[in-house]
Amino acid sequence: MTIQVFGYPKSTFTLVIFHVLKELGLSYETVQPSSHEEIKTPEYLATKHPFGKIPYLDDDGFHIYESRAIARYLVNKYQGTKNSTVLIPSDVQKAALMEQFISVEISYYTSPLFKMLFELLMKKRLQGSEPDSKIVNEAREELETTLDVYEKLLEGKDYLTGEFSLADLLHIPLTFYAFNVGEGDLWNKRPNVSRWWKNITERESWKNMITEYNLTA
Amino acid sequence: MTIQVFGYPKSTFTLVIFHVLKELGLSYETVQPSSHEEIKTPEYLATKHPFGKIPYLDDDGFHIYESRAIARYLVNKYQGTKNSTVLIPSDVQKAALMEQFISVEISYYTSPLFKMLFELLMKKRLQGSEPDSKIVNEAREELETTLDVYEKLLEGKDYLTGEFSLADLLHIPLTFYAFNVGEGDLWNKRPNVSRWWKNITERESWKNMITEYNLTA
Repeated sequence: MTIQVFGYPKSTFTLVIFHVLKELGLSYETVQPSSHEEIKTPEYLATKHPFGKIPYLDDDGFHIYESRAIARYLVNKYQGTKNSTVLIPSDVQKAALMEQFISVEISYYTSPLFKMLFELLMKKRLQGSEPDSKIVNEAREELETTLDVYEKLLEGKDYLTGEFSLADLLHIPLTFYAFNVGEGDLWNKRPNVSRWWKNITERESWKNMITEYNLTA
Repeated sequence: MTIQVFGYPKSTFTLVIFHVLKELGLSYETVQPSSHEEIKTPEYLATKHPFGKIPYLDDDGFHIYESRAIARYLVNKYQGTKNSTVLIPSDVQKAALMEQFISVEISYYTSPLFKMLFELLMKKRLQGSEPDSKIVNEAREELETTLDVYEKLLEGKDYLTGEFSLADLLHIPLTFYAFNVGEGDLWNKRPNVSRWWKNITERESWKNMITEYNLTA
């Protein structure tokens, strides 16, 4: 049976899953919720995602939700079966340094970036109100501080831990949207960060993502 | 060489590391920062933790920071070497369900709990101001919603995924502090959640933590 991903293709959480699947060379089907209400129904909560979120994955009857858990599951189960891409290294120390960057990403990168994008992209649609420029500026400042550290950590490196990994991949969808709303200067003005962004987004898998999901729109 | 943990013993992030070390039956030394300023010095940022945080770990010259990355590293390297405790299962599906709960914990549990505890415990000390009761109430409400889901998910189970794992362990320090500031009713009034809390905190390793670090104070 084909792997089924249930989610909205433009959601950053769902994009992470698609991207992992492509990197690992796996084929999959996408099922979209019929409406936003569907993911809040008692049936959905009881059988799909108890917190009423997307995405979830169905792998031949094995159900799993939460994008980061799904990504790790796919790597643990399928890495090395279809191609030689390594998203989580088997070496204990290399894996640790990748986990370090995943934690850095959650704590210092995605948190302010999500705050900024919520104001700039989602607030109007979800709450009908304008972006709060104070929150945008605070988030931008926080992100500047984080990216200054990234600039140092990326010195002489193509990817966060030297080689491409799940840690790099998890940065992509939200950063892509930041570029789309005109905030790309935060990355572009830092030479190492800018080189890293070029490296991860010029991989075949991400270029295919952009075409397939029409992400430049 | 003994494993060295650099951190404040009362910090929830450091407590997670101590707890993992104890569960795995490993001995370790603790090094405390001489002052809060020490972790912001250029030397500390360049060689210990580039974001100026604690804890970090030194395992015979291998340095790693960020508590969740440290926890995973310790499990990957040492699980099964000193005792039979399993914090991350080797079975791919069991591991996936544990990762699912770690993601749930980060997204829906720790986020509101941290917000509540920041107001109740840390705001006065760090910012010299009183708790904002609106924020406390919002966080409490968010936590009530999350714990309602936990109550269902824990039906008939001793631990989150059936067996004790890293997912349970990561919930402990912050929840312990919530009980300490008198918010334990959130857990106590839900029979399954309350039984789970009893199960995880009555393990030998956590009882030793309480004694060794005088956590009841």
